[in-house]
Amino acid sequence: MMKETNLHEKTVSSETIYEGRVITVKIDEVRLPNGNLAKREIVNHQGAVAVLAFTDDDRMLAVRQFRKPLERTIVEIPAGKLERGEEPLACAKRELEEETGYTAKTYEHLSSFYTSPGFADELLHLYIATDLTAGVARPDEDEFVEVLHVTLPEAKELLANGEICDAKTVLAVYAWENRKLSANA
Amino acid sequence: MMKETNLHEKTVSSETIYEGRVITVKIDEVRLPNGNLAKREIVNHQGAVAVLAFTDDDRMLAVRQFRKPLERTIVEIPAGKLERGEEPLACAKRELEEETGYTAKTYEHLSSFYTSPGFADELLHLYIATDLTAGVARPDEDEFVEVLHVTLPEAKELLANGEICDAKTVLAVYAWENRKLSANA
Repeated sequence: MMKETNLHEKTVSSETIYEGRVITVKIDEVRLPNGNLAKREIVNHQGAVAVLAFTDDDRMLAVRQFRKPLERTIVEIPAGKLERGEEPLACAKRELEEETGYTAKTYEHLSSFYTSPGFADELLHLYIATDLTAGVARPDEDEFVEVLHVTLPEAKELLANGEICDAKTVLAVYAWENRKLSANA
Repeated sequence: MMKETNLHEKTVSSETIYEGRVITVKIDEVRLPNGNLAKREIVNHQGAVAVLAFTDDDRMLAVRQFRKPLERTIVEIPAGKLERGEEPLACAKRELEEETGYTAKTYEHLSSFYTSPGFADELLHLYIATDLTAGVARPDEDEFVEVLHVTLPEAKELLANGEICDAKTVLAVYAWENRKLSANA
């Protein structure tokens, strides 16, 4: 606790400069441990979930989608934003079914992590889903995704060629490989 | 390429609403594949690096620091923002030395990934650094960090108790475990 106190930055003032549908942006002025003042640019986000879903033949479900901030199409594990007040597990189930059509009997929480703690408070909850049943995808009207079923070697190829290139999906592939290596150890 | 085209969102208009030191925020109006219009809230970021640095006695260098967006102190691998025009590897070397005092003879690129592609274009380059030499940390005047040397079991404990809780560091711990399991396989 001593350490926490010594590193703490106290808010002196806070100005909200944008409130959108996905993000809120604010500028905080803070008092640093050395007494100096500094500005912190902060993006608030509702949080999100992602699902590492395995079919019975050991393939990972993935979606290819266009990401406007990157101006390109990438391959990711199914994911989505939390609705206000929504439980992460309920959101995981909803997003998996909406984007891929699959439902899962078994969910296991793997990890929850902040995606970019330097400027954003987005917390992402990652689940492993197994015992899948195929169904019909029903994405939001304005959501366009292509569903893929990839083996671990294919996932590593997508990682190598840069189509898998976001933190949660890279992390999911590492976690998958890790589980396989542990099982064989 | 066909697929790319079908998923693409064309920019109709773009409005910059904030230009800060760390982030720029803009709102794009886009034409969706179905012809509908939609708004995209986008955070532009210069990009960043992170370093998974191993001491000769197989400990990972980590830093404990206060993160204003989270209003708490967390444990991360050394990392920092790219300066304009800076090469990622040069940035990795600079940040490792500034934050921990260590220099490394050997750098290996592990992965580069977008931290939160739904709303931000931040690309993070992750390196593994070995053959370390200790030195004197010289953080920026307004940067306050505590340096830790953690074993893999300690890193997994920090992960379990939530002190390690950001994407790059969770990913780094998985990658570390992965390498160990592969070496023993």
